[in-house]
Amino acid sequence: MTNSQGPMNQAINLRSKFGLFSEHWAPRVIAQMNDYQFKLVRLQGEFVWHKHNDTDETFLVIEGSMVIEFTDRVVELNRGEMIVVRRGEAHRPFAEYECQVMIIEPAGVANTGDTGGDLTAENDVWV
Amino acid sequence: MTNSQGPMNQAINLRSKFGLFSEHWAPRVIAQMNDYQFKLVRLQGEFVWHKHNDTDETFLVIEGSMVIEFTDRVVELNRGEMIVVRRGEAHRPFAEYECQVMIIEPAGVANTGDTGGDLTAENDVWV
Repeated sequence: MTNSQGPMNQAINLRSKFGLFSEHWAPRVIAQMNDYQFKLVRLQGEFVWHKHNDTDETFLVIEGSMVIEFTDRVVELNRGEMIVVRRGEAHRPFAEYECQVMIIEPAGVANTGDTGGDLTAENDVWV
Repeated sequence: MTNSQGPMNQAINLRSKFGLFSEHWAPRVIAQMNDYQFKLVRLQGEFVWHKHNDTDETFLVIEGSMVIEFTDRVVELNRGEMIVVRRGEAHRPFAEYECQVMIIEPAGVANTGDTGGDLTAENDVWV
């Protein structure tokens, strides 16, 4: 079975998909489950403070390390670790060195949430 | 922040969570995002043919290898590979050797779908 985003119902190799792009802070969709999307993103440096008022958001570190700064704490995430950021909770991702992350969230969620600005990525870009 | 299922909003280490149980075909919930759950499961041997008529279902292999048999093909999944099984599509997971998998799907989905039987696991068991 295929759809407009490419072949579905077959194995998706995360490492291979990461090999298809190099930009930072530019999520690439690799799969959709119901109305949720799986997005790969390469992080490096400091993102903007933002929140998503309508949804939780999941980060799973595939390679490297990152931190997510919250207003009351900083959470470090290493390879094989994940976190669910609660809806409405302000957060700022940061990675000293490049980090490969899978984000899982409803389709259509803007990467910069309610903050916007130059780091706002185009949505629904598949790879 | 904590809830009845333990501390939330902190890093969840998949390897550590897998270390907390050893049963096969018995999913353990490690996190919830909106009304979706992240479940870890150890697979070994052959599961039952089943389908989920109301939802897609995602398998992500964390360690080892597995296959999912469909009526028209067999898909092999190795570490770092995932698949979204479409709603209504009959499938049967199989693993020759023990395989560690993360399943992502709406809360409340039965592991045996519309088939039921002895392998039906208790739902919403957190670890």
